[in-house]
Amino acid sequence: METETSEHLHTHSNPYRSHFCGKLTKAEVETSVKLSGWVHRVRDHGGLIFIDLRDYTGVCQLVLQPEREEIFSLAEHLHVESVITIVGEVIMRSPETVNPSLSTGEIEVVVESLTIESSAEPVPFQIADEGNTSEELRLKYRFLDLRREHLRENILFRSKVTSEIRRFLIDGGFHEIQTPILTVSSPEGARDYLVPSRLHPGKFYALPQAPQQFKQLLMVAGFDKYFQIAPCFRDEDARADRSPGEFYQLDMEMSFITQDDLFVILENLFQHLTKTFTQKSIRQFPFPRIPFRESMDKYGTDKPDVRVPLEIQDLSDFFVDSDFKVFSSNCKPGRCVKALVLKGKGNESRLFYDKAEAHAKEHGSPGLAYIQFKNEGPKGPILKFLKEGELQALKERLGLEQGDVVFFGAGAWEKTCKIMGAMRNYFAPLYPIDKNELAFCWIVDFPMYEYNEDEKKIDFSHNPFSMPQGGMDALTQKDPLDILAYQYDIVCNGIELSSGAIRNHKPEIMYKAFEIAGYGKEEVERSFGHMLNAFKHGAPPHGGIAPGVDRLVMILRDEQNIREVIAFPMNQKAQDLMMGAPAEVAPKQLKELHISLNLPKKEK
Amino acid sequence: METETSEHLHTHSNPYRSHFCGKLTKAEVETSVKLSGWVHRVRDHGGLIFIDLRDYTGVCQLVLQPEREEIFSLAEHLHVESVITIVGEVIMRSPETVNPSLSTGEIEVVVESLTIESSAEPVPFQIADEGNTSEELRLKYRFLDLRREHLRENILFRSKVTSEIRRFLIDGGFHEIQTPILTVSSPEGARDYLVPSRLHPGKFYALPQAPQQFKQLLMVAGFDKYFQIAPCFRDEDARADRSPGEFYQLDMEMSFITQDDLFVILENLFQHLTKTFTQKSIRQFPFPRIPFRESMDKYGTDKPDVRVPLEIQDLSDFFVDSDFKVFSSNCKPGRCVKALVLKGKGNESRLFYDKAEAHAKEHGSPGLAYIQFKNEGPKGPILKFLKEGELQALKERLGLEQGDVVFFGAGAWEKTCKIMGAMRNYFAPLYPIDKNELAFCWIVDFPMYEYNEDEKKIDFSHNPFSMPQGGMDALTQKDPLDILAYQYDIVCNGIELSSGAIRNHKPEIMYKAFEIAGYGKEEVERSFGHMLNAFKHGAPPHGGIAPGVDRLVMILRDEQNIREVIAFPMNQKAQDLMMGAPAEVAPKQLKELHISLNLPKKEK
Repeated sequence: METETSEHLHTHSNPYRSHFCGKLTKAEVETSVKLSGWVHRVRDHGGLIFIDLRDYTGVCQLVLQPEREEIFSLAEHLHVESVITIVGEVIMRSPETVNPSLSTGEIEVVVESLTIESSAEPVPFQIADEGNTSEELRLKYRFLDLRREHLRENILFRSKVTSEIRRFLIDGGFHEIQTPILTVSSPEGARDYLVPSRLHPGKFYALPQAPQQFKQLLMVAGFDKYFQIAPCFRDEDARADRSPGEFYQLDMEMSFITQDDLFVILENLFQHLTKTFTQKSIRQFPFPRIPFRESMDKYGTDKPDVRVPLEIQDLSDFFVDSDFKVFSSNCKPGRCVKALVLKGKGNESRLFYDKAEAHAKEHGSPGLAYIQFKNEGPKGPILKFLKEGELQALKERLGLEQGDVVFFGAGAWEKTCKIMGAMRNYFAPLYPIDKNELAFCWIVDFPMYEYNEDEKKIDFSHNPFSMPQGGMDALTQKDPLDILAYQYDIVCNGIELSSGAIRNHKPEIMYKAFEIAGYGKEEVERSFGHMLNAFKHGAPPHGGIAPGVDRLVMILRDEQNIREVIAFPMNQKAQDLMMGAPAEVAPKQLKELHISLNLPKKEK
Repeated sequence: METETSEHLHTHSNPYRSHFCGKLTKAEVETSVKLSGWVHRVRDHGGLIFIDLRDYTGVCQLVLQPEREEIFSLAEHLHVESVITIVGEVIMRSPETVNPSLSTGEIEVVVESLTIESSAEPVPFQIADEGNTSEELRLKYRFLDLRREHLRENILFRSKVTSEIRRFLIDGGFHEIQTPILTVSSPEGARDYLVPSRLHPGKFYALPQAPQQFKQLLMVAGFDKYFQIAPCFRDEDARADRSPGEFYQLDMEMSFITQDDLFVILENLFQHLTKTFTQKSIRQFPFPRIPFRESMDKYGTDKPDVRVPLEIQDLSDFFVDSDFKVFSSNCKPGRCVKALVLKGKGNESRLFYDKAEAHAKEHGSPGLAYIQFKNEGPKGPILKFLKEGELQALKERLGLEQGDVVFFGAGAWEKTCKIMGAMRNYFAPLYPIDKNELAFCWIVDFPMYEYNEDEKKIDFSHNPFSMPQGGMDALTQKDPLDILAYQYDIVCNGIELSSGAIRNHKPEIMYKAFEIAGYGKEEVERSFGHMLNAFKHGAPPHGGIAPGVDRLVMILRDEQNIREVIAFPMNQKAQDLMMGAPAEVAPKQLKELHISLNLPKKEK
């Protein structure tokens, strides 16, 4: 490829620079260089002035000598963050002034000419310090905040990750295809952003929550392997891992594939990104596949952090004949008794167990039964309900030793699992995990249906458009609550990166699947007619997934706050403090759009 | 890179295919293959059934033999566009049935098993024929239309072009950074799409017409070289080369560059794309740079198709002393006399000249003076006003010969240039041009200001944020109408691909530039305060450009209709006929957004 690299470009006639600040090395010693950048720091060392000059590649040290009176005087009055261009000669630093923590720390540049391109007013916070600045101020002056090394490197990292995702997928036979952003409100899902139509009074476009229907239509159209780093929009309230308003997902869909094929592609992609961009290791490769039911049983969640060395154990067979009715009454289908053992935590203070119980109650548990295996003997509120042999058998079953504690949960299966899962998360910080380990896993075999207790009917558990495992035969022959779907989640370190599914591409199976959930043919056609119509004209088996780009970058980069991986994020109130969005608009604009304001009445 | 190629993937355990239909060759003869795809055509040749099976890589021929009764019977009842999976053996075709126009034309596949994945209902138009289907039907069934080879190849072409643009720029040191889509209404430009805010009653986001301010803020933030294949939105009525609603531009911005640096990067990019994806040749490389004034003088437009072998000539010095007042009175500053010579078109019928005059009038000309140099002597309505010597001198000046015709225009400079430019375009089809030639050119040296006759004041000609050539000195010392800007257009074959500029990054020059156009400091700060605020905190010299992706693909692909290069375009009434956008929404949704409908009254 005849790429003109930027370095090449700027070595020649460009009036601003011959080199980048952060890339100067010993190799350039005795060379005349032209540099442009921001004044990062100025230090007046008696006779000499030192300037750290910064561009996006890093910082290098400039030296101004008093002999050059004119530029020395300019430098004396320079404000930090001003933009300057200098010409100077690269020299070795004296050995005692070498800075080994800086890539350019062996050299400095003796300035021969200096031009101020832009003189900076005092800045509201220092760029050179990554100190505590309020997020509000940082967002308002995002153009300054982005100059800070940490945030700048995050944004460049994100750019490199998305670029590498594209290369990887395109080399693997995928095509990136852009789907509409002005589209229709979807019948399901979260709240849509609406866009009034000027040409069609009373009608609205909706911004896509995801290009789900379009990517399936691309499969019906024959495009085989599609992806898109796709902007998606949900008018939902902010969360730590989700920015309000817009976000990007790596939207993917493939034809003529099985679930296994898709897993291989994603595993290779994530392995490639991990190796290319991080020092992290992947805990298990290929990623383990954990059936939904097993994940709930063992981890009490479908988003397990499998690095945490705690597993919930099932005792529903153990207590069948126990006299302790709280346990034995739950040893039947749909209910369960669970145990969570903490090794070496049997001799804690009363407060430890009280706080744990309070946490369990927050998650809906009526209480928290436990047995401490203290040095002086077992202890705990339920001990009195267990027969002598029962306790011994329990110790053997769970591998309990002196110094351990076991917590119990009993009740409806899903609720009990979730409570125990919350306890597992609560206790997790007690056990060290490898922060540099990426524990990817697939959660598979989600149930197709669930029983809605409130409405006393069968509902779809998750996505009604997933293919049921076993196809039409399963729908006609199995108990609906036993039917599994080709639906899967990919989870990393306890964070769900995406759901995905092999889709139901057969109209007759779709009608049947909806019928089981109580929807008639007409209703299905009214809501999903255009998709059904497409599937009736020759649809391939297909499936996909859509990992969130923001979340993926957060994981690879060890960031907790999503706004640290987005160049211009909104705040948690869905405002852009720098640009002033959202804003009032002119009455004329509203009139053209055939809408008027309908403001809430002010409360006194 | 450890890319799992799709071919690799599918050669193994995948139940749907071992090979792609369009990629089978002699090399696979005597191999058992598994193929999946759409039934493109079915031909029943007496004893044998032939099926053309299609996937996105192409078509191959399947043969079904009556001996295999079960699958033969299935095949007999197959509808075209059904999706099937087959297993079969690749064999050579007999020599007389080889189809040299097909990449798979030497072989065929004898089917041993056949599974119908999806049975297609009758299709509303044939995929195998690229025939005349109404655009409305095509858009409604876009998922079928996209199966047609021509459209499919266009979309794949677009995907490859955008992918290659990304590779080229990233290899050249650019970073792709996503900028917000939910942002604020811009003070200038076209009509915005608005998005009501739920959380902030009475306020609205606007979809960006371009990420102009964000990309400049990225430069202020120090990102050096930015690009984005950016979705942009304008609520404007449709044109042939612009889809209503949304479009994509290759948005670029660079710091510490000159106009020349930017030109080199773009020229290399466009040359690379041309060489990689087309058989076309670039007329002149590096691209010629034509000053705006010269372009108007010679071509009567700032979007010249320089392939057309017609140049407008200036006669403003020639007719200074002419007795013909219509001409001589226009030989002064701000006005002009122009000539357009058509070689060999002096002996056309009266109708030819009358139609030309009618065309000139459509473009605002009061009439169209011309002189035919007929075989029997010169002829034309203005001949009588010219002195004997004048005609001879004119012939010499313009190189007129027997058989030629010259058309004249006289009047205000810009208007006259434009009329002559319209005539040049009108006559262009008379002269052959090389359709495979890409005549890129830069239009440079746009004037910074123009005189607004209506308001009797100086106005900005184009973009008020471009850097004036000569900087502050030019603003303080030159006649404003003589000041040029570092602003440029890139044009190819008469189509404007983009405007761009080296930006004005200095607040003091910006205030002065606005002052000349009659705007006070307060007014500037009120409208552009956040940009000025950014520039006051250390801004690098920077500039950029933003070629339209749709238009670029149209040019490279020889497409006239923009909807042929977009996967899911809206129609010219800004409707998505397949998805039914825009659509009515529930009253509850409007209430949440604090708006109500304000519909136009129905006319009786």
